[in-house]
Amino acid sequence: MRHLYHHWLVPGARLARLVLGEKGLAAEMCAVTPWVRDESFLALNPAGEVPVLMEADGSTVAGTMAVAEYLDEVYPDPPLLGTEPRVRAEVRRLVAWFGDKFRQEVTEPLAGEKLLTRVMGGGTPDSRALRAGRANIHMHLEYIAWLTQANRWLAGPRLTLADLMAGAHLSLVDYAGDVPWDDHPAAKEWYMLLKCRPGFRPLLADSAPGLRPAPHYADLDF
Amino acid sequence: MRHLYHHWLVPGARLARLVLGEKGLAAEMCAVTPWVRDESFLALNPAGEVPVLMEADGSTVAGTMAVAEYLDEVYPDPPLLGTEPRVRAEVRRLVAWFGDKFRQEVTEPLAGEKLLTRVMGGGTPDSRALRAGRANIHMHLEYIAWLTQANRWLAGPRLTLADLMAGAHLSLVDYAGDVPWDDHPAAKEWYMLLKCRPGFRPLLADSAPGLRPAPHYADLDF
Repeated sequence: MRHLYHHWLVPGARLARLVLGEKGLAAEMCAVTPWVRDESFLALNPAGEVPVLMEADGSTVAGTMAVAEYLDEVYPDPPLLGTEPRVRAEVRRLVAWFGDKFRQEVTEPLAGEKLLTRVMGGGTPDSRALRAGRANIHMHLEYIAWLTQANRWLAGPRLTLADLMAGAHLSLVDYAGDVPWDDHPAAKEWYMLLKCRPGFRPLLADSAPGLRPAPHYADLDF
Repeated sequence: MRHLYHHWLVPGARLARLVLGEKGLAAEMCAVTPWVRDESFLALNPAGEVPVLMEADGSTVAGTMAVAEYLDEVYPDPPLLGTEPRVRAEVRRLVAWFGDKFRQEVTEPLAGEKLLTRVMGGGTPDSRALRAGRANIHMHLEYIAWLTQANRWLAGPRLTLADLMAGAHLSLVDYAGDVPWDDHPAAKEWYMLLKCRPGFRPLLADSAPGLRPAPHYADLDF
C-alpha cells in the first residue's frame, strides 16, 4: 500500500493529496506534525518536511515538487503538466506563483497566522500580517480572473498542477474564512469548478478540533 | 539570439547561467534589477523576478524551476535530472534542499545581509542573522560531505541540477567569504570539482563595484 505523510495545514502536502486524487491513486494518509522532532520521520526525509510519499515497495519521494513531478511522470494519466515543453514551463511558472508568491503574500499572513499559529500553540495572530494578507489577496484573485478569461483553467483548456497548487493554498485561506469571493465572481467560478472535482473532497472534509472551518468551506455552492 | 534576464545576486538566476553553461548554450546576458519596478520587464514576467529566458523566437520562460526544467527538456544533452523517475525525484529533493532550506538558513542570512542589503542601499548587516548563518552552514557542508562519500556528485555518479543549485547558493556565500572550507575538506573537494567546470567560469568573473569578492573566490585551487 502507498502511504502519504502529510499535515493538513501544509500547502505542499495538500497539493500531493490533490494530485493523488486527480490520478485516482489510493494512499494511506499518515498525519505528521512536522514542527515536532521525530527521528523515525527524519529517516524518511532529513529535511523533516511533508509531503513524503512512500510507494508500496518502501521507496520514498520527499518534498512538494519532487512528489508532484514524480507522480506525474510515473502515473501520466491524466497529465497534469502538459506534454509540450512550453506549456509545461507555463504550468511551472504558475506553480511557483502560487507556491512562492501567493504563499508569502497571502497564505502565510492569513492561514499561517490564524490557523498554524493556533495549532502550534502560539499566541494571537499578528494584526499587521492579517491586514497585509487581506490587502494582497485581491490582486491574486484578479490574476486568476484574468488567466481564466480565455481558458477554463489557469494554464489553458486543461486542469494542471497550477490549478491544484492554487487550490491547495486558496482552500486553506478559505478555511480561515478570508477569501472575499463576492468581490471576485470570475475567480469564484474557477474555484467552484475545482471544488467539485472528486479529488478535492478529502480536503473539504478537513476539520481540526477547536478550529472549525468557515461555514461555507465545504459547500460546493457557496 | 537567446537572452537570459538575470541578476548576479539571485541564486535562481545563477542556476540558469550554470545550466546554460553545462549544456553549451549561448545566451546574451541582460542584467535586471528585480527590486526596481520596470514595466517592460513586468511584461516578460508579471512576478517581476529573474531568471527569465527568452528564446530566439521571442517566447519566454519565467522562474527558477521553469527555466531549469525547460532547458533540460528541450536540450537534454547532458541530462541534468537523470532519466529514471526515482533518480529525478532525488535530484528534485536536493534541489529543494538547497533552493529552500539552505537559502533560508545560510544564503539569506549571510550573502543576503552582506551583499544584497548593501547593493539595495540598505543599512549594515544584521549581526544576529550573520551569527545564525555562520552556525547553520556547518550542517549543510557536513551533509554535502555525507552525500558525496559514496558518489562523486550529490545525487549519484553524475553531475545534476542538485550540484548546480548547491553551487549557485554556495558561490554567493563564498563571494562574501563566509564558507569555512578548511573545516570541511570533503565538501571543499566537491566544490573544487564544480568550480573547475567551464560552465562555472562566468560566475567566478562576477564582481560588483565597491563590493569585491573574497580573495580566493575565483581561485580554482583555494
